[in-house]
Amino acid sequence: MPDLLTPPRVRRGWYIACPSDALGAAPRAMRLLGDPVVLFRDADGTAGALVDRCPHRNVPLSGGAVVDGALRCPYHGWRFARDGRCAHIPALDGPPGAAHSADAHTVREQQGFVWIWGQAGGEPDTDPFHFSLIDAPGYLVVRREVAATGSVHAVAENALDVPHTAFLHGGLFRTDRDRAPIQCVVTRWADRVACEYIGEARPEGLVGRLLSPSGGLVTHFDRFILPSIVQVEYRIGEENHILVDAALTPVDDFETRLTAVVALKTRLPGFLVRPVVTPFALRIFGQDQVILKEQTESMQHFGEQRFVSTDIDLLGPHILKLLQRAERGDLGDLDRAPTVRETTMRV
Amino acid sequence: MPDLLTPPRVRRGWYIACPSDALGAAPRAMRLLGDPVVLFRDADGTAGALVDRCPHRNVPLSGGAVVDGALRCPYHGWRFARDGRCAHIPALDGPPGAAHSADAHTVREQQGFVWIWGQAGGEPDTDPFHFSLIDAPGYLVVRREVAATGSVHAVAENALDVPHTAFLHGGLFRTDRDRAPIQCVVTRWADRVACEYIGEARPEGLVGRLLSPSGGLVTHFDRFILPSIVQVEYRIGEENHILVDAALTPVDDFETRLTAVVALKTRLPGFLVRPVVTPFALRIFGQDQVILKEQTESMQHFGEQRFVSTDIDLLGPHILKLLQRAERGDLGDLDRAPTVRETTMRV
Amino acid sequence: MPDLLTPPRVRRGWYIACPSDALGAAPRAMRLLGDPVVLFRDADGTAGALVDRCPHRNVPLSGGAVVDGALRCPYHGWRFARDGRCAHIPALDGPPGAAHSADAHTVREQQGFVWIWGQAGGEPDTDPFHFSLIDAPGYLVVRREVAATGSVHAVAENALDVPHTAFLHGGLFRTDRDRAPIQCVVTRWADRVACEYIGEARPEGLVGRLLSPSGGLVTHFDRFILPSIVQVEYRIGEENHILVDAALTPVDDFETRLTAVVALKTRLPGFLVRPVVTPFALRIFGQDQVILKEQTESMQHFGEQRFVSTDIDLLGPHILKLLQRAERGDLGDLDRAPTVRETTMRV
Repeated sequence: MPDLLTPPRVRRGWYIACPSDALGAAPRAMRLLGDPVVLFRDADGTAGALVDRCPHRNVPLSGGAVVDGALRCPYHGWRFARDGRCAHIPALDGPPGAAHSADAHTVREQQGFVWIWGQAGGEPDTDPFHFSLIDAPGYLVVRREVAATGSVHAVAENALDVPHTAFLHGGLFRTDRDRAPIQCVVTRWADRVACEYIGEARPEGLVGRLLSPSGGLVTHFDRFILPSIVQVEYRIGEENHILVDAALTPVDDFETRLTAVVALKTRLPGFLVRPVVTPFALRIFGQDQVILKEQTESMQHFGEQRFVSTDIDLLGPHILKLLQRAERGDLGDLDRAPTVRETTMRV
Repeated sequence: MPDLLTPPRVRRGWYIACPSDALGAAPRAMRLLGDPVVLFRDADGTAGALVDRCPHRNVPLSGGAVVDGALRCPYHGWRFARDGRCAHIPALDGPPGAAHSADAHTVREQQGFVWIWGQAGGEPDTDPFHFSLIDAPGYLVVRREVAATGSVHAVAENALDVPHTAFLHGGLFRTDRDRAPIQCVVTRWADRVACEYIGEARPEGLVGRLLSPSGGLVTHFDRFILPSIVQVEYRIGEENHILVDAALTPVDDFETRLTAVVALKTRLPGFLVRPVVTPFALRIFGQDQVILKEQTESMQHFGEQRFVSTDIDLLGPHILKLLQRAERGDLGDLDRAPTVRETTMRV
Repeated sequence: MPDLLTPPRVRRGWYIACPSDALGAAPRAMRLLGDPVVLFRDADGTAGALVDRCPHRNVPLSGGAVVDGALRCPYHGWRFARDGRCAHIPALDGPPGAAHSADAHTVREQQGFVWIWGQAGGEPDTDPFHFSLIDAPGYLVVRREVAATGSVHAVAENALDVPHTAFLHGGLFRTDRDRAPIQCVVTRWADRVACEYIGEARPEGLVGRLLSPSGGLVTHFDRFILPSIVQVEYRIGEENHILVDAALTPVDDFETRLTAVVALKTRLPGFLVRPVVTPFALRIFGQDQVILKEQTESMQHFGEQRFVSTDIDLLGPHILKLLQRAERGDLGDLDRAPTVRETTMRV
């Protein structure tokens, strides 16, 4: 029987392990794709990541301490370097060998985040995602981590889905009234998929009214980039630009951490916008968390994911196919021209 | 290895979903045979039941609301009629189709209970059980719902078993002393089994003394009717008649809800009997709940149900065979003459 | 795929069920190798042990009572003798038969402990372990039960492992400084394995200083005896002798009860030693409990036990092999000469 529940596990990809400032002198435990990982900094402060299991007697290394730049197991005191090599076995009359190594993940630290390659022992063939507006002048930038009970696929689809907003977030930025057709152009490359919404009116809800009191057309893109980046971009009139970049970390099959970088440029002064952005985003995401958890529990209860999609499930099915291909290691041809499809949606 | 633990799951049969007055304007979640079901009333107040999973993104429909007589999903606002048909998909530029339907259970409402056919999408070939004395003049009638951690088979056997009463309910209506033989006549049809106890003395315990102070013989029948009706009937002298009808609902393999309708006609005035009936029944059932839970946990721990029966396990083995045949859809010949067997028991 | 997680289950062996004084007139529930067992005393006070499941309807017999020296089931009152024979079935018109028996474990009571043979229905081919110093004159003897989340193998290896003490119990009786090589002689018989440590200096920590202020060489043996006895023996100078015998009871695959008999003869007066022994031992064992639990959870999380050993894992790998052979019933030749191996360790 095919497994209809387990979501794709994409190991060949970069994921955010934690913000840089969350990793200090003590080792830090996390999970990635269900497996325990321990992060630590060596004597130079360079971040490393090991599978969180001592090869000797299988206890978690995260319970230990960093000694002379190596991570020391709390049970028998074996010490491991950033690359997993065993540096020292106390009481042993001789040096450790290759058999005593721990498995290591490649780590990169950039823009204030510790990124980890999904496959222990694997060689990265790409670079971590770059947040384009994180230091852009004139933008208000907010960073925030949140967690959801749902697969990367479910969380990404939810984040990029327009039709649910009128119900789950009813009144906050869309309503179920006075719908008008808009054009949706979905473009899919080998490693990403994007949707442009053409003809969208300024949302009727609170956000729209604040940003662009006089109304006007909206430029709106939703994008998903392998292995787990979601991007929502709005331009409302000339003055307003919102770019939400979120990197999803698959903690476990149905547990996803979302690291969001929200970049905002608006006609409103920063002192007005700043106190509103985070509470507003957290309220919306709180509603999403509830429904994602219910969705996950329902699928787990029935032992399957059985979705029926329509033409207006614009990105979810593409995201699933991208993840499934990436899990198989089928990267496709990055240079091939994208496929494009147009659909009408009533928003 | 044969599964020695999972009890029969009889889907072709009527089960009580809830009392009528428990289903109002809001949808109501329940489980039947392990699967989530949502009950709701349409614009006319007619009860419906759907598998509690939106076909679109698999969230529970019971978190939604009834809108224009249809059940609306809380995530994307899809709406479903009582028969499961999808009535509306917001934002979609066109009407929903058959592929967008939810699975529906047939529902009947009678005598103040909502009954549900066990098989989603299945056509009932029988009628729900009729409680014969629910409106009978001269009877005190009490309705009550209770729950037990045990399979339908375990709960039904427990409810219809005589030998355990002297121990589990010691002193309440039978004791372990002064036993005398009685005759037990077990009659089995294709869809039911009954036992008549002949020569039984008035029980020595509290109940017996209250009902028939002068003693005298007792007419006593225990019956099980597919898929899950248990019936205990006593006549003590001319004046006392007790009929306990209980419909068992298989919430899950080892979780059974029991809806009892107790009809009493006694020589005692109603104002004396009424305050006693429910506490007395709940005390007995409380003891049964404890032992049924221990039995279930023991079987789950050992990973099997391994029963050794004797001649005085009069109904339990028949009930199991009836349930197993009903699960296979082997209904047998309802017109065939029943088999009859006599046994001696010392009570 | 081979099961890399489930530890060996040695059923042919004696295990301590409980201290004698913990088994009174009421039945007592325990688990052995994952299976529920009920202990009780018959009319003569002789201890018995049955599989804790009534053969009739599978409820736990431990919820019942002892009546006329037999264990009576709480559900239908069936009674069982110490050997499992069904002595009485109330209401049945005739005597019970062999089919109505419960499964029994052989029980022996000696030196204040109730021992139980691991295999229900099996015939013991050995005697329970004898604690050699439990009544020795001049010794302070302390009995104590503790529990750990770990297999018999993990708990035994931990109890007999020297290298971890400098880390997990850092400072209490060994440190990570000033290491010097000692000789370790491991001797393995068909049913046991022992290590003698030659040239070991008096431990630098608290214990050593208390026992032998002037230092001096130490005689130190660690032993494991099938199915689950661990023994740590120290002689420090002429005056000090410590023998820790511990019988491990496999409650479940990863749940082990340890019954320790500590016998001490020291140069210090008993009134000084007595109040120190138990708190000191419990502090050490408390640290072991933490690491054993983390080890177990880590192995369960990864779904496997994958150990890399070195030359100074002196006893653990031997213990595992002994347990695996004992589980298969391969007892080996008890008369064959042992194998001997020498290793250098730096302590």
